[in-house]
Formats: sequence, C-alpha cells, structure tokens
Amino acid sequence: MRKITRKLMLKNVPVGGNSPVTVQSMCTTRTHEVQQTLEQIEQLHEAGCEIIRVAVPGGQDATALRELAEKSPIPVVADVHFQSLYVFHAFDAGVAGVRVNPGNIRKFNDKLQEIVNAAKLNGIPLRIGVNAGSLDDEILKKHGETATADALVEAAMKEVRLFEDCNFHDFAISLKHHDVNTTVDAYSKLSELVDYPLHLGVTEAGPKFQGTIKSAVAFGALLRAGIGDTIRVSLTDNPIEEVRVGREILMSLGLKTRALEIISCPTCGRIETDVIELTARLETALQNYGQLGEKPLKIAVMGCIVNGPGEARDADIGVAGGKGKGDIFVRGKVIKTVPEAAIIPQLLRLVEEF
Amino acid sequence: MRKITRKLMLKNVPVGGNSPVTVQSMCTTRTHEVQQTLEQIEQLHEAGCEIIRVAVPGGQDATALRELAEKSPIPVVADVHFQSLYVFHAFDAGVAGVRVNPGNIRKFNDKLQEIVNAAKLNGIPLRIGVNAGSLDDEILKKHGETATADALVEAAMKEVRLFEDCNFHDFAISLKHHDVNTTVDAYSKLSELVDYPLHLGVTEAGPKFQGTIKSAVAFGALLRAGIGDTIRVSLTDNPIEEVRVGREILMSLGLKTRALEIISCPTCGRIETDVIELTARLETALQNYGQLGEKPLKIAVMGCIVNGPGEARDADIGVAGGKGKGDIFVRGKVIKTVPEAAIIPQLLRLVEEF
Repeated sequence: MRKITRKLMLKNVPVGGNSPVTVQSMCTTRTHEVQQTLEQIEQLHEAGCEIIRVAVPGGQDATALRELAEKSPIPVVADVHFQSLYVFHAFDAGVAGVRVNPGNIRKFNDKLQEIVNAAKLNGIPLRIGVNAGSLDDEILKKHGETATADALVEAAMKEVRLFEDCNFHDFAISLKHHDVNTTVDAYSKLSELVDYPLHLGVTEAGPKFQGTIKSAVAFGALLRAGIGDTIRVSLTDNPIEEVRVGREILMSLGLKTRALEIISCPTCGRIETDVIELTARLETALQNYGQLGEKPLKIAVMGCIVNGPGEARDADIGVAGGKGKGDIFVRGKVIKTVPEAAIIPQLLRLVEEF
Repeated sequence: MRKITRKLMLKNVPVGGNSPVTVQSMCTTRTHEVQQTLEQIEQLHEAGCEIIRVAVPGGQDATALRELAEKSPIPVVADVHFQSLYVFHAFDAGVAGVRVNPGNIRKFNDKLQEIVNAAKLNGIPLRIGVNAGSLDDEILKKHGETATADALVEAAMKEVRLFEDCNFHDFAISLKHHDVNTTVDAYSKLSELVDYPLHLGVTEAGPKFQGTIKSAVAFGALLRAGIGDTIRVSLTDNPIEEVRVGREILMSLGLKTRALEIISCPTCGRIETDVIELTARLETALQNYGQLGEKPLKIAVMGCIVNGPGEARDADIGVAGGKGKGDIFVRGKVIKTVPEAAIIPQLLRLVEEF
C-alpha cells in the first residue's frame, strides 16, 4: 500500500500524493557551462529522466539558472548550500524547485522567513536534504558520533520544524546514507512521522555495479513498503546510467510501464539452444522498441521444455528451444516449429505484426 | 527481524535456522561432461558460490553425479524432474541435496514414500521448486489461468502436504515467478504458513541488467522483511555473474562481510577532481583485495567538501578532492594534502599499511 503524502508540483511534474514515482538525476557538468549542461539534460531526458538537479556552488552558476530553467525540457532543481542569495536567484530564474536546508540558511544569515515567503509567492517547492556526511556536531555527539538512522531522522525533523515554524509545508525530504540498512531504517522511521513526500536515495553508493545493487535493494525494500515518491540512484558513473537503473527499478515493481520485457531462462545443463546468444541478439535487434510509442511487449526466450511452454504462455511472443529448432509461441499457443537459424527472423516478424 | 526457519544441512553448509544466507547458482554445462562441469564449479566457488545445482535430464547425467559430488569443493544439488530413478541415483552418488517435486514423482510412478525413506536414511534434504511456468492445470484454472502469488502458494502447499503426509520435513521451498511483485507476495504469504527454509529466486529474470535489478529489488524487499535463507540470482548470462550479484545483494544488507567497500560520490557540478576516473583506477588496483583474507576496508572517494569530510569520517581511508589536490583522511582525520597525481599512490600505500 502506497503511503499517500502531500503533493508538490515541480512545474508540471507532480511529486507525492498518489502521483507516479519519478526518476531524477543530477548533472555532472559545471552548471555555468550552460551549453554542456543543456546537452546533458537533453540526453538524460531522452533516457527517461523526469526531474534534473544542478549544483549551484557559485555566482556564475546561479546566473546560469535562468537559461537552464527556460530551455530544459524537464523541471530543473537548484542545489544550494548556505547562500540564501542563490536561493532568491533560483526563484527569480524560474526553477522548478530548490534543494536547501533551512538549518544552513539559519546559520548563514537567517533569511529563512524571507526564503519561505518567496517560495510561497512563486509557488516553488523546496527539498530538505539530510546526508550522513553533513550531520551537525550536536546530533552526532548524541548518537555516539555515528550517523545512525535515528540521527538522520532527528536531523531531518530539526529541519522540518524550522520550515513548519515559518508555516511552510511545501517540501520534500531526503535522508541519505551510503549504508542500505541505515537508509531503509531512516526512511521507514521518517515516513511514520511526517506526510511530506520522500525523495529516496542511497548516497555515495559507489561504482556502477555496487551502486546499482545497493540502490535496487534499498528502493526495493522501501517502495514495496509503500515508501518513496521520487528516486535518485547515485552512481560514480555517467548519470545516464543512474536514470537507466532508476527506471528499471520502477519497472520491475510495475511502477512504470515497461515497453519491452524479455523473460529469458538462465540456462542450465538441460538446454539444447544457445539462449544467451539468442537473447543477446534479440535485445540488440529490439533495443529501440518502445521509443515510437509501441505497445508493451513481453517476449519469452526459453531453453528447454521444463518451464518453457509455461513461461511462454504468459508472454505475447515466445520461443522454447529444442535440438536445433524452436517452438514459436503467440499468446501461449505454438504456431509453428522453425529451425534454429530462423528463430530470430521469425520472432522479429511477429514483433512487427504485434 | 530474520524469520527463524528449520535448519537443513547440505553437507557442511547450513541453510535455514539462523544460519548465514547462502549464495547459490546452477551449472550451465552439460552435467555428464564432468570435466567442464567441475571446472565451472571451481570458477563459481572462487567467485563465492556456496551451493551448486546441476540439471539431471538423463541417465548419463545421473551417472556423472558421483564424481561431481566427490570432487566438488561445494555441496552439489541434483535437479531432477519426474524420474524417481535419478533421485535414488543422486542419493547413492552422495549429493548434498536434491530438488524434486513430490507431485511429479507421484504422477510418474508413486515412489514418493521410498524416496522420503531414502532421503531420511542418507540424511539428504530436498527442495520443492514451484515455478510459474509449471503450475498444474487445476490450480491455474482456479486462479483465472494466471500464475498469481496465491496460485504459487497453493501449488507449494500441495507439494508440502505430500511430503508431510510421508512424515518428511527436511526440505526447503522455492516459489519462482518472473514478476517481482508476484514473487515478493508469494514468498511473503508462504513465509506466514510454514517454517521450512525458503530458497529465493526470481525466475527467467532476463538479461544481466534487467535480471540484476529484478533480483536485487525482490530480494531486498524479502530479506529486509526477514524472509529468505538461501538465494539464487537467475541471469541469462555466465553464472559467475549470478554469484557476483548475489553476493553483492547480501553484502549491501550486511548479510555478508564486504572485503572492500568504495564509498564514492556520484559527482556533480561542484567537483574539481575526476572522481569517476579516480574511483575506477582504485577499483582496478584493489580488485583482488580480500582474497588473501585481508580485513574489511572502507575507502571514501569524494569530489568536494560538501559531504566529503563527513563521509570520509566513516571510512578507514579516504580522499576529498579539491582543485588539483586531495585531502587524505585516515579514520576521519586529514593526515596530509597531496597533489592530484599522488592521490592513488598515497591511498594504495595506506591500504598496504592498513
């Protein structure tokens, strides 16, 4: 059961409420290099990114926000630390949202009430982002100098109260840690305490392989528990990979429609057809499937008769391999048996007809 | 909270009870080609596989089991369908376990009681494996011709009762479907009904990318809920990948010790050091770390000062990059600042000392 949170609007993209869970990423370009940044945003958008964040470490970056907000095909969120000036810049520039922690603003120059007023006036939601790496000394001390789940939740609630004291409620929250269990515990606890939308992330998840699995495990546990309104996979890799992984996680849970699903067996000592080879060729041939709005397609590639026909039954199109040949299925019925070399052409013809 | 199940012993490897969750895989070689099969088992063992299954589709394969069981460094499970003769062969051969569904045996020649007696006599546990692709017509009909979670659980319970009627309880159960939600629902429901150990798997999960994420999402949700005693990731790829993914899933949840964890940031417009490059070089340099039993090591590679020092605090060794240089951390304290080119050599020297 999805937990229903407050709904925010990042321009035309809803986050929270019962809205679809969105995939977001962050640019790795220098924000003030507008052309490169817009190019990266375009690539990420094509890969399926729905919200994009850019860092605003300096004045040049703040200045660049106007053009980015105007030209980006997806909502732009400005990531600001400390300087309230840049937050006002971001509002003026017409960004869709700002990530900024009220505690930092309070420490810096205490323009919090002005920021909240301007956010309300412009209808721009904010995000509180608590990271294990930037907890304050008081909280760390209280929790044995360790960024535990309770420490993260306490830090978040402190930020929440600063916004609530200004009578501001139009914000999302993230609570990031590099450890999966701490992350899942922290979001689970926070979800019990507030109904603000939650932005899920495992931070500093690491290189692609480790980071993909950490994020999938953590988001799997949370999303299945109904927790999470928008997700960001962090990888030390091209952000396009983050988007691909994020989308795949949501698709695996039925939270996004999958244009093409390949149900293929892991192969074992029973197979008489090279399923790995067949599947790879099919994957390549159909890599652009869905980009022209084709309807969702399930293809089964099975190596033997033990589970083959049964699995193929659940697919739109399928093949169950045998010695040098394959039984071709359409919606669970064998329509013909073809020699091995004809399997791929036959399947592609059926995809065409489909 | 881990659900405590009955404990089985696959030779010296426990499954269930409160034993560590194990990683298993299945050979893709022809089982009767003993040399190739043993070579693959050796490779999988080196990659961290703890239990290996082999298919037994024919008499030659059944005959090969003795040598495999004798020479394999890890417990061998024979995967048998229908033919009770092969089950007896497997027991005689000294395998560690047999996957066989009592329903199939009953249909074939009804030697179920004899099989159970022999399993008890030899102290060999069995596994019931229910797959979406092989549900019987009666169950499918009852569930609208669809392999729903309830259909899978009903099929499993039917098999369970056949074993229980023979007064046999030394078995594990798997319930595999290619859909993540159905898989998670099915195992969750079954876990409420029985205390037999559960072997987790998403079947026909597909090619590496899709299959990795499906498995991580499903196992993440289940293991965090305390469900699952042994796991098998199914990928249409080299089974070594299955083992790598399975281990990574368990490590991400702290269910296996991670020899080397790299905490690296996803990079953004703030960074002044090429973190992707640094991380990749470090990953390569340390790829064999842990194989000689080195103690677990956490290295942080951070691109800027926002979360850098905080994250580095939690690592054994770390670097937070700046313009053309890096602050080197040991257990949270900066020990020196070095030029960019010296970062990797410096970190490797510290790993050495560590």
